[in-house]
Amino acid sequence: MSTTVEPNRNGVDTATLFATINAVKAAPEAAKFQFRAENEWISGTHNRSTIHGFFGVGEERAHEHTFRFDADHPAILVGRDNGPTPVEFVLHALAACLTAGLANIAAARGIKLTEVRSTVSGDIDLNGILGLNPDVRNGYQNITVRFTVKGDAPAEKLRELVEQSRARSAVFDVITNGVPVKIEID
Amino acid sequence: MSTTVEPNRNGVDTATLFATINAVKAAPEAAKFQFRAENEWISGTHNRSTIHGFFGVGEERAHEHTFRFDADHPAILVGRDNGPTPVEFVLHALAACLTAGLANIAAARGIKLTEVRSTVSGDIDLNGILGLNPDVRNGYQNITVRFTVKGDAPAEKLRELVEQSRARSAVFDVITNGVPVKIEID
Repeated sequence: MSTTVEPNRNGVDTATLFATINAVKAAPEAAKFQFRAENEWISGTHNRSTIHGFFGVGEERAHEHTFRFDADHPAILVGRDNGPTPVEFVLHALAACLTAGLANIAAARGIKLTEVRSTVSGDIDLNGILGLNPDVRNGYQNITVRFTVKGDAPAEKLRELVEQSRARSAVFDVITNGVPVKIEID
Repeated sequence: MSTTVEPNRNGVDTATLFATINAVKAAPEAAKFQFRAENEWISGTHNRSTIHGFFGVGEERAHEHTFRFDADHPAILVGRDNGPTPVEFVLHALAACLTAGLANIAAARGIKLTEVRSTVSGDIDLNGILGLNPDVRNGYQNITVRFTVKGDAPAEKLRELVEQSRARSAVFDVITNGVPVKIEID
């Protein structure tokens, strides 16, 4: 029986992960990234974002592919349902961030995952965005994430993965603590 | 020359939009919605969300299609680039929300839009999520949205559309003010 971490546990290249952390430790400036989305209005509430270029590790970079995503409102909200609503993409971002972190942390701790599922739900009262009640906020009033995590570790260790992922999640931080947003018009 | 609002200005069904607002005014409970995303881990930092069902106007509903979105990290962040990063989806959500609102507001004000584009960029220092510097937050340090808006109104009126959209944006509220998030584990 070996205690060596498998090179590719959970599909995570742990050697490269640790090498990356050590490289950033030696050159903290490398960790400054800028991500971007370019959005184009199509018609009504339907619009499309393109995600491709970003800045990181000191230079301009790009994803291997150009990703495009449509957003719209459903018919009940006077749209044409050409994509999810913008607020649903926020829930996807949160689930994706917590899950990616969880897989990395599990790999670093030598835990083999067999299943990770989550449902993220957000409650919103549209009296806010419709301008009908000044006491109701525009955004979600609360968000709940429910995780199922299975792997070769006791339940308590699997719970700790979720906790550590939360503690290191970029999107969890953005959503719970807020970020200053500046809007400029050409 | 008619001052009647076109029924379908900017692709927005303004008659239905106003009827919806009046319906909610009469029955505020109708505006309570719950949106959801279901996420499944695939491998490493790669995972996929499914968006389909939601609750609104008193009953369970569903989008006309089932939407699926992959998220991953790029190779430079030890992923396989099967999708944008979770934090990039946050930028898409913000652009999409501001743009959908802008089109609705323009239609309500009788302004015909010819072009709406935006670039959203977010600066993030990964020393936070890598756990290398406790003074650096996990999420974006700041986000900037740059809009180009063209239409049949003076520049000042077009600027006011962006301002009103910001004032009524669900995602802008979520990102700038934060939302409580509860995480449960089965």
